[in-house]
Amino acid sequence: MIKRFTATALAFAFYISAFAQDTPDAAIVQKIRKEGLENSKAMDIAFNLTDVNGPRLSNSPGLKRAQEWAVKQLTEWGLKNAHLEEWGTFGKGWQIDKYYAATTLPYYHAIIASPKAWTPGTNGPIKSDVILIKADSVADLAKYKGKLAGKIVMLDQGNPLQSGLKPDFVRYADTTLTKMAEAKPQAAGDRQRSGNGNNMMAQMMKLREIRAAISTMLTEEKVGLILTYARGGQGTLFTSNGASYALDAKPVSPELEVSAEDYLHILRLLRAGKPVEIEADVKTSFYDQDPKGYNVIAEIPGTDKKLKDEVVIIGGHFDSWHAATGATDNAAGSTVMMEAMRILKAIDFKPKRTIRIALWSSEEQGLFGSRNYVLKHFGDPKTMALTPDQKKVSAYYNLDNGTGKIRGIYLQGNVAAGPIFQSWLAPFNDLGATTITASNTGGTDHQAFDAVGIPGFQFIQDPMDYNTRTHHSNQDTYDRLIEDDLKQAATIIASFVYNTSQREAQIPRKELPAAQPARP
Amino acid sequence: MIKRFTATALAFAFYISAFAQDTPDAAIVQKIRKEGLENSKAMDIAFNLTDVNGPRLSNSPGLKRAQEWAVKQLTEWGLKNAHLEEWGTFGKGWQIDKYYAATTLPYYHAIIASPKAWTPGTNGPIKSDVILIKADSVADLAKYKGKLAGKIVMLDQGNPLQSGLKPDFVRYADTTLTKMAEAKPQAAGDRQRSGNGNNMMAQMMKLREIRAAISTMLTEEKVGLILTYARGGQGTLFTSNGASYALDAKPVSPELEVSAEDYLHILRLLRAGKPVEIEADVKTSFYDQDPKGYNVIAEIPGTDKKLKDEVVIIGGHFDSWHAATGATDNAAGSTVMMEAMRILKAIDFKPKRTIRIALWSSEEQGLFGSRNYVLKHFGDPKTMALTPDQKKVSAYYNLDNGTGKIRGIYLQGNVAAGPIFQSWLAPFNDLGATTITASNTGGTDHQAFDAVGIPGFQFIQDPMDYNTRTHHSNQDTYDRLIEDDLKQAATIIASFVYNTSQREAQIPRKELPAAQPARP
Repeated sequence: MIKRFTATALAFAFYISAFAQDTPDAAIVQKIRKEGLENSKAMDIAFNLTDVNGPRLSNSPGLKRAQEWAVKQLTEWGLKNAHLEEWGTFGKGWQIDKYYAATTLPYYHAIIASPKAWTPGTNGPIKSDVILIKADSVADLAKYKGKLAGKIVMLDQGNPLQSGLKPDFVRYADTTLTKMAEAKPQAAGDRQRSGNGNNMMAQMMKLREIRAAISTMLTEEKVGLILTYARGGQGTLFTSNGASYALDAKPVSPELEVSAEDYLHILRLLRAGKPVEIEADVKTSFYDQDPKGYNVIAEIPGTDKKLKDEVVIIGGHFDSWHAATGATDNAAGSTVMMEAMRILKAIDFKPKRTIRIALWSSEEQGLFGSRNYVLKHFGDPKTMALTPDQKKVSAYYNLDNGTGKIRGIYLQGNVAAGPIFQSWLAPFNDLGATTITASNTGGTDHQAFDAVGIPGFQFIQDPMDYNTRTHHSNQDTYDRLIEDDLKQAATIIASFVYNTSQREAQIPRKELPAAQPARP
Repeated sequence: MIKRFTATALAFAFYISAFAQDTPDAAIVQKIRKEGLENSKAMDIAFNLTDVNGPRLSNSPGLKRAQEWAVKQLTEWGLKNAHLEEWGTFGKGWQIDKYYAATTLPYYHAIIASPKAWTPGTNGPIKSDVILIKADSVADLAKYKGKLAGKIVMLDQGNPLQSGLKPDFVRYADTTLTKMAEAKPQAAGDRQRSGNGNNMMAQMMKLREIRAAISTMLTEEKVGLILTYARGGQGTLFTSNGASYALDAKPVSPELEVSAEDYLHILRLLRAGKPVEIEADVKTSFYDQDPKGYNVIAEIPGTDKKLKDEVVIIGGHFDSWHAATGATDNAAGSTVMMEAMRILKAIDFKPKRTIRIALWSSEEQGLFGSRNYVLKHFGDPKTMALTPDQKKVSAYYNLDNGTGKIRGIYLQGNVAAGPIFQSWLAPFNDLGATTITASNTGGTDHQAFDAVGIPGFQFIQDPMDYNTRTHHSNQDTYDRLIEDDLKQAATIIASFVYNTSQREAQIPRKELPAAQPARP
């Protein structure tokens, strides 16, 4: 209780002092709103990122096409120095050239599935009975030795489906937002631990050991194709990577992530002792000519003598998974950030500080694009050795939680920024953006900045069907994008960027984090 | 108001007189509940109907497999005279032997779709750019003449998707059931007409004319494949037939019903002038060696000298659509009816009246199985010429509204049956079955009986995800079945059948309907 009181009192003191300088210019807000809400190009941008360029898996041809399009588009809008900036070595690119699978026994049924990222193809059409692998221990695997060459196999696992008693679609209720607003700052890395953590951990380690042994055996036995249960249902499947993208990755087996219904259908038949035969044809390509990773970078240069070397950065990750076109993860955030830049150019804004957009790659594999950009330009979170430029970034704003409109902002523990942002949100309260929460949110690129002491923020967004349908799924398509929400977000972010670039002082900073030695 | 008062007063009078003879035997109810709820075979039956035998499209190999299995299973349970009874000529059977389609330009993407029933295949793999057909009038089609041979085409139609703000899953609220209970009887054929019906009809006629002209042109031009927008979303698609099953049906073009996301993706690209190329391979088979239709019939013979020639019939349609295994439409109803018969055999019930199960075919094409069965055995609704057996059927009970448990029964205007059924439902009120509604429900096989004056009833069932996900969709799979709901339904129906077979008098009848001359 005392802690929360202190935080509130602190916030109040800042609010008073911040109020005067942080009241947004009503005329500018009006211009930004008009451009963002009435002349939006958000859906055009999103169409190009998704439908036209396709999946944007790290280092895939689709990502390269989209990156080149973005550079061209940002240049056409008049941004300066739009280019691809190398951030280091990623590894191999990969894409699907063909996917087909169907049961042929007990009867024909085409299967909804997706090859796992970075897995090889079947080397032509294959057809085989399906073998169910049952193993409670590594020793159990011995019985399969010498019997699996060229076969299609699946593991004996998969739970019955529970259909959606709740709507797919969610917007935050006022009560939820109020709770968020009352949250106290968390220490970085704060996590709830479950009571029986050790027990669960032991079980998970055992499972992991069996899985690893199965995987090795299947590769050694040269199985034709592995079928894996995909989370999801009703035609929606969630996907991920099935193998390493490293240039020297060991060979693995071809692997399909199969939609829950199709997987469970086969599993029920096999468990009942009924033969299932499958025909499949999977082709995938690997790309290792240029294993480097790139971010898209472009700027609106600052114009104030004293401040033009300082910078406000906005961004979001540009890469996606492969089974759809990554519309909500994260064409949405990329679209909003590009549109925010377009709005600022359209109103012919000449900022004091430089404004930079950064569209990261390889976020999905570990925030590689943003982390390496930060490492190169601003400092090393492991040692906390910082560059002079670290001090020149007023703030980094990120968007990566789907298509939902902005409901507020996560302070990431930076309570001093709260009253400033409260003032900046005020002209957009009517659009549903009201909430300042001291809490952290994770899993995306603002963390790279936060880790070296640069104020890095991610906005609160309505969840929509992000968790139920779109996040890493085969249904993350243009259809999932909500035009009004993207417009709202771009308008608010353009205004935040405007305010950050013009503000006399930089956004206040938290205490510098401690150096983080490499994780065990 | 007066009418409703009259109906209620009438119902009350019957209730008093019905009460004594219609109080169910508590010991028998207990036996039925125990067998139905604790020893259920419902999921075994459903597994065989769906997973093991596959889609059960009228006259397809899958339907024949399932019908043969049902005859064998009913015989094994000790039912008598289990057999397939021919009801007349249906036409050709059809099944999918291969389905594959994917965009190859602007990039590779495998398409979720299903061939429309009774359409031909592509005669081997084809690959073509996709041509968008735009036509506001028949005259507009001239521009395509001579340009479509072997091409993949789609119509310029399709609305943006709206994701599910409501849950997929619904159970009836108490308030809804109360409204149903208060409904007054409807005249047969009662329908609400929209105010601007004529206008809409004219528009629809025009659209239909253009569609027909397009369809004829596409066949004449020998297009390679038509892509059609399928209702649904997120991997779920609803399907139907695309051509006639008549033995002398005219040739039509191959046609795929494409999931909404995949269709709209291609449509947006084409509308933006961006080329799309598709490769596809569709094989389908037609079966015309035996064009006759069959129903599965089996009995538990009556044992009472006076009453054994009378009959209680239960049934549901056994056929399904082709894109999944028809789990909720209507393996669920067929399962429940088979399980009800199994329960009655398991408790060694010797009924006074004969109990018959009828699993209809070709319901999906127009209640053909049940209508022709009724025509042969009981009478002709067109002339109302009735057979002597028409008087011997006490009641027909049907189930065909998905996997949801029974919440009550539709009286189909037969208010005199209300108090009887109210008594029979009483021992199952604790399982959620409480509601008697005077209203009609349509679209399935009880109507065949009602049309010749035999009391025909369909139960009220919780809708679940029938309307949002399963009804005629590619996701109507075993996974959608709710075990507890199927058990409840089978238990209640077994009890209704018990009561009907033992009741001194037959179920009261409505006035005979008027003869219905052939529709214009």
